[in-house]
Amino acid sequence: MAENRPWYPTSERPMRTSPAEFPTPPDDRYFDDYRQGAVFEFGPIAVEEAEVIAFARRFDPQSIHTDPQAAARGPFGGLIASGWHTIGLLMRLFVEHYLTAVASLASPGVDEVRWIKPVRPGDRLRLRVTVSETRLSRSKPDRGIVHSFVEGINQRDEAAVSFKAMNLVGVRPVGGSAASASTGAPSP
Amino acid sequence: MAENRPWYPTSERPMRTSPAEFPTPPDDRYFDDYRQGAVFEFGPIAVEEAEVIAFARRFDPQSIHTDPQAAARGPFGGLIASGWHTIGLLMRLFVEHYLTAVASLASPGVDEVRWIKPVRPGDRLRLRVTVSETRLSRSKPDRGIVHSFVEGINQRDEAAVSFKAMNLVGVRPVGGSAASASTGAPSP
Repeated sequence: MAENRPWYPTSERPMRTSPAEFPTPPDDRYFDDYRQGAVFEFGPIAVEEAEVIAFARRFDPQSIHTDPQAAARGPFGGLIASGWHTIGLLMRLFVEHYLTAVASLASPGVDEVRWIKPVRPGDRLRLRVTVSETRLSRSKPDRGIVHSFVEGINQRDEAAVSFKAMNLVGVRPVGGSAASASTGAPSP
Repeated sequence: MAENRPWYPTSERPMRTSPAEFPTPPDDRYFDDYRQGAVFEFGPIAVEEAEVIAFARRFDPQSIHTDPQAAARGPFGGLIASGWHTIGLLMRLFVEHYLTAVASLASPGVDEVRWIKPVRPGDRLRLRVTVSETRLSRSKPDRGIVHSFVEGINQRDEAAVSFKAMNLVGVRPVGGSAASASTGAPSP
């Protein structure tokens, strides 16, 4: 049914967001702006059956993700999203609203991915991110590592998925903005 | 450029696999068939620029994944695949060749996802899976947990990505096959 569905017809869909909670916009956001203990919420983003099926056919072809009839007889009593698709939807919100658009250097990986509750077509997921730890690099003082606890919260306010992310982020450059232009010193 | 690209034009592409290395085919594979210490390789699967860009536009819209020109000036000197896309490609091989098609119950999560080397368009990734531990459930003896160490190996034989997977898998049912039909006892 979704055979000819393009990748991203849904990408222009409006999203309700709360970017104002972050002290700086993504295009002026540096290591210095991530404050340990801060909690943000963004989204929601919709889980759509056609995309659940299309994603799984390509990347996770198990019948609980691809075949509504077979899934109805399975352990979850219906179609559920691939856990990787769920994370993809959250990453979309993470990149658009939480990550810096100008100073992201790399991610070495993530830890403790947990698929806690099934995610079903029709669900709406919010991204909740907690800045769990920030640490300036000793060897390369122009960057630091931001540890974040990431949760996907469904419309019943249940955490459906969680993981711990690591992101290498550049510090605000000297003269890069009024905030630290005088010294350029990071403030982790 | 890939605006109207369907999700899975590449899914019918032939893959070189080594399914004969596994003692049973996916449709007759149970907890009992995963032997601690066994190592399998499947694939390769190709990393294609159009899919790298399409995946990232939807799920990980950072310019190092979506914009070849911007990426060329970035830290990796060119376009690299979203780490989540890389995992998706490996999951495709994992599901088709390693996981059981009849007895997979769920996955509680994965641990220690590490993006070790950049993955670029034109790369070809093999899936290497090591059965690191199998343990029969005490509370529900009809199932066990299979711990697997998963690696994506590129064409230069470098591990580009790795993670630790957990899968709940049903034991071979009584009478389910000649192998254990006499007792139905699992042999973890």
